Amino acid sequence: MAEPATATQAAAPAVPQLKDELDIVIPTIRNLDFLEMWRPFFQPYHLIIVQDGDPSKTIKVPDGFDYELYNRNDINRILGPKASCISFKDSACRCFGYMVSKKKYIFTIDDDCFVAKDPSGKAINALEQHIKNLLSPSTPFFFNTLYDPFRDCADFVRGYPFSLREGVPTVVSHGLWLNIPDYDAPTQLVKPLERNTRFVDAVLTIPKGTLFPMCGMNLAFDRELIGPAMYFGLMGDGQPIGRYDDMWAGWCTKVICDHLGLGVKTGLPYIYHSKASNPFVNLRKEYKGIFWQEEIIPFFQQTVLPKDCTTVQKCYIELAKQVKEKLSKVDPYFDKLAEAMVTWIEAWDELNPTGSSVTNGKAK
Amino acid sequence: MAEPATATQAAAPAVPQLKDELDIVIPTIRNLDFLEMWRPFFQPYHLIIVQDGDPSKTIKVPDGFDYELYNRNDINRILGPKASCISFKDSACRCFGYMVSKKKYIFTIDDDCFVAKDPSGKAINALEQHIKNLLSPSTPFFFNTLYDPFRDCADFVRGYPFSLREGVPTVVSHGLWLNIPDYDAPTQLVKPLERNTRFVDAVLTIPKGTLFPMCGMNLAFDRELIGPAMYFGLMGDGQPIGRYDDMWAGWCTKVICDHLGLGVKTGLPYIYHSKASNPFVNLRKEYKGIFWQEEIIPFFQQTVLPKDCTTVQKCYIELAKQVKEKLSKVDPYFDKLAEAMVTWIEAWDELNPTGSSVTNGKAK
Repeated sequence: MAEPATATQAAAPAVPQLKDELDIVIPTIRNLDFLEMWRPFFQPYHLIIVQDGDPSKTIKVPDGFDYELYNRNDINRILGPKASCISFKDSACRCFGYMVSKKKYIFTIDDDCFVAKDPSGKAINALEQHIKNLLSPSTPFFFNTLYDPFRDCADFVRGYPFSLREGVPTVVSHGLWLNIPDYDAPTQLVKPLERNTRFVDAVLTIPKGTLFPMCGMNLAFDRELIGPAMYFGLMGDGQPIGRYDDMWAGWCTKVICDHLGLGVKTGLPYIYHSKASNPFVNLRKEYKGIFWQEEIIPFFQQTVLPKDCTTVQKCYIELAKQVKEKLSKVDPYFDKLAEAMVTWIEAWDELNPTGSSVTNGKAK
Repeated sequence: MAEPATATQAAAPAVPQLKDELDIVIPTIRNLDFLEMWRPFFQPYHLIIVQDGDPSKTIKVPDGFDYELYNRNDINRILGPKASCISFKDSACRCFGYMVSKKKYIFTIDDDCFVAKDPSGKAINALEQHIKNLLSPSTPFFFNTLYDPFRDCADFVRGYPFSLREGVPTVVSHGLWLNIPDYDAPTQLVKPLERNTRFVDAVLTIPKGTLFPMCGMNLAFDRELIGPAMYFGLMGDGQPIGRYDDMWAGWCTKVICDHLGLGVKTGLPYIYHSKASNPFVNLRKEYKGIFWQEEIIPFFQQTVLPKDCTTVQKCYIELAKQVKEKLSKVDPYFDKLAEAMVTWIEAWDELNPTGSSVTNGKAK
């Protein structure tokens, strides 16, 4: 587990699942050589590449991949003034890809994530596991001690109420990382040599009412059922904060999932995270977030959405309202963020008009 | 993992931790030959054996173990009329052992549980792992995606609030089972051949507000901090229900832990569960519970304990009151159970007067 997998070809499935119902979204500033390693797993799927930084730079994509690529000029052209809600010079820009996709499912991965090996040495097809997670129910209302009861050779244990065994739709699958763990800058600074070598063979539902730190490095979700909540916020260029894009999306998403009765799973699949980012640079991006999260998390823990919030969009607009009301006192940034949240929903609805929305992966 | 470990001697630690601060409680109706296998791990500790069924029968304990043994006559003699709260002909009788112990910690295990092997083939010292779990904090207020942050080579991930990283005292360590999983009778009937072979290398905190099915087969707890909540109810002889003893204790314990800010961990260690119990017999014991749990679980999910419940005893008495008020309508059994809960606390306080209570494992 200390090294990434090399021979991935053999591990590719004969029939790629959800081939026409899933897009892979990759934010990047560099040539996508990392795709070579993922070729057997990703090549059947359509890629949406969101180019961050200088739009005049050419991003090379290995031959044979089916993709569309958007740079900042494209984002500005497509969204017009609403482009202000999409971050620049930060991987938060990836959420533009969620918005332009027309598929039911999204898998998003960072370009420094390689194929990991399971303890037997076999290359892990991360996408295949995410699809398994998304296509089996979640169990947010009661904890199952043998983890995901829907995996092979597992079930609900004694004492699990039968009325809850049907579960709820899984809309988020949060995968983990071998090698470089997803630590904050202070932890990186204190433990520069720590590597994650523990392969935990589990998938589990994050219980209702519990928040978690959602990492965007290796993440899949049901765009149709939760997509509009997957806004990665205002980060990077011109903003006082970075590296909280996925966290923000995770908090909003979890609160909305809990309200709407949707499920979030975490655990498998692992990817191999190759490079630790610079902790000094990270500290500069993060330090306001380190303070702010102490107030943001209690805010989200106490958030109650009214009963008439019956769609993700309605929930999200309500959340934006509450952010403005309750977090603006933390910093004027949250005023701007609350406005951007509304703009995001407007842009989402513009690009995804109800009449053309997808259901069960098929455009209507 | 399909077989129990055989060579356990080599895996024993040089210095057994908490040797004078932990009792091992074993409920049984048979000779304790299973202790031979556990000898390297258990022999340094004191055993409390609670003999169920016919008190005239002699239970053989392998040589070299330090133990005290209580049969029904002893329980009646020690508790007098209060002995009515201790179940007969059901492993629920084990909780008498919690009451008579004078130690800070309890580990309880069933006599059909053998030593399991980890994936490398090494014998698992279950008790040692339980002690690790109990001696490191829990994190019930926010989910850590890399599981227990206090294990080696693990930590809190990015986005975990720093104010919550101290954690709270862990008072329950719930271990799992390889081979025969802890299924209810219907699942046993439907999947008679299912075996648990998945070794999940994780320990995790069950989040605040989330209930779980606590199994008494392989369980450790801090008797001083949570002991009075570990009542295994009225089961077996003369009662309309069995096999819900540990579940009942788990629901009560979790609600009280959440109220008092104490932590519950689940996951490692595994034991090897050797024999599936008879599903037909189990169905007879369980079937009322299968109905009742549909009302009991919402009851516990909605339970709020008043602020003046500042000790486990006060919480438990309040819980008994609420059980009487709200569950008696389900079945008159809950009236009896509520009364037995009160008797249990009275008996606990009689055997554990405040002046002689233990703190940090030392008798005052």
